[in-house]
Amino acid sequence: MQKATKYTKAVNSKYPEQVVIAIARDAQGKDNPIAIGWTTITSGDPPMMAIALGRGRYSLEAIRHSGEFVVAFPSREMADDVLYYGSRSGRDTDKLADRAARTEPATEVSTVLLSGAVANFECQVAHEFETGDHILVVGRVVASHTNADADVKRLYTVGPGHVLRGVEPA
Amino acid sequence: MQKATKYTKAVNSKYPEQVVIAIARDAQGKDNPIAIGWTTITSGDPPMMAIALGRGRYSLEAIRHSGEFVVAFPSREMADDVLYYGSRSGRDTDKLADRAARTEPATEVSTVLLSGAVANFECQVAHEFETGDHILVVGRVVASHTNADADVKRLYTVGPGHVLRGVEPA
Repeated sequence: MQKATKYTKAVNSKYPEQVVIAIARDAQGKDNPIAIGWTTITSGDPPMMAIALGRGRYSLEAIRHSGEFVVAFPSREMADDVLYYGSRSGRDTDKLADRAARTEPATEVSTVLLSGAVANFECQVAHEFETGDHILVVGRVVASHTNADADVKRLYTVGPGHVLRGVEPA
Repeated sequence: MQKATKYTKAVNSKYPEQVVIAIARDAQGKDNPIAIGWTTITSGDPPMMAIALGRGRYSLEAIRHSGEFVVAFPSREMADDVLYYGSRSGRDTDKLADRAARTEPATEVSTVLLSGAVANFECQVAHEFETGDHILVVGRVVASHTNADADVKRLYTVGPGHVLRGVEPA
């Protein structure tokens, strides 16, 4: 049986929620990562992925500047990095350098891949849609990469307050 | 280290992936559910959620007819129902009746809530965007409900081939 609840309370039943890192090169040539939970695939052929970014985000500026971005699925081992990328702004600092992140060049877009991620998807911006207080940026995937180590596993937000963990089937 | 991979292979690193049921009332007054993995929140204030629907889906017709839909987070116990809703078309059958689904009236929109779900979100269509081979329907959440039993847990697709299970933090 269902009972009416405030949205802000009901939405806490969403966890575990996937988390991705979106990376884009800014006007100064700095590769800037952000942690994003609001993301989905939107098309199979051609492959497309969407990320939702707050209107004032520096990452949105960087993506608009370059017209490209990478979506990385972070591994469990990257939880501290993800927390950092999600809580600082690229306006103030070089987040990848701060975390000494291992990166490698992308092949089709201007920014970098995260070497420790489970997978990286290179995207060219196809659409930008306004939805409430966020901008939905939809990218067409033009190249895909997976970790050479097949055992690395994806990271999730498992509860309110940015609790980042792996998950296993129950 | 990353290695270039075909998208169709790389994307299999996405699991576990959340699954939702979207329900809309069709032109005949039938409440039609569909299972959707491509979904995300897109705005916090106002609260909005997006679902990606293949262009030919009967659910898209029903949502366009009514301008409203419910997003339900199915519980682990609903795995067989979710598989059914995802593999049949409402053009051919009454999926909720076929599964003897427990439902209750929504309060702000024309369709029903799933009584066994972890949560139900009533949505009014705010936007419809074309992205590749799917249509992204964005709804504004106008009412929210959670299961009276706080112990029910959300269902996920944990691997290719529609393997539906609960997940636990690792």
